[in-house]
Amino acid sequence: MSTRLLEHPSAEDIRLESVLHALADPMRLAIVRFLAESDREVGCSEIELAVSKSTGTHHFRVLREAGVINQCYRGTAKLNALRRADLDALFPGLLDSIIAATTRQAP
Amino acid sequence: MSTRLLEHPSAEDIRLESVLHALADPMRLAIVRFLAESDREVGCSEIELAVSKSTGTHHFRVLREAGVINQCYRGTAKLNALRRADLDALFPGLLDSIIAATTRQAP
Repeated sequence: MSTRLLEHPSAEDIRLESVLHALADPMRLAIVRFLAESDREVGCSEIELAVSKSTGTHHFRVLREAGVINQCYRGTAKLNALRRADLDALFPGLLDSIIAATTRQAP
Repeated sequence: MSTRLLEHPSAEDIRLESVLHALADPMRLAIVRFLAESDREVGCSEIELAVSKSTGTHHFRVLREAGVINQCYRGTAKLNALRRADLDALFPGLLDSIIAATTRQAP
């Protein structure tokens, strides 16, 4: 099965401001929470977002370009996973506190 | 001495997305870090920002409207303080992890 690569920032290029910007959106927070709960690679279509496909794609790209998620193609499917190890090393406690906050805030 | 009040969201109206948006900016992160290190009410003019006064005022307002800081007038001075108790109660660990991250990331 072919694996195409998408561009990602290397860990040392991940910036706190970009990560916070990427997470400052309810839909992207929902994606991150879903990925955190899944703890595995997840196809975009597995995450139900009440938006058009192109809007969904945009949100995933913002997360990838900020360094929050890894995306790769496996055949025609785009798979997503949190960059938890990178983020935890760079910003200890940040991701966990944000995920916990989304859980508390959810209606 | 007169104390004029400015509008602030009440604690229950503080939203995670708004807090993350407010912090997704290097200048506003610098303000928050300064306030965290000061641990007291700080006048706007005490924090050196390499921007015009109106841009500085804008950044303080974004932080206040998101619920990150308290601002009040004391005479003609506008004083700022982190809403640490509110934020820590709503989003445990979030503020500390972000402040720690700014320290690690700072050049």
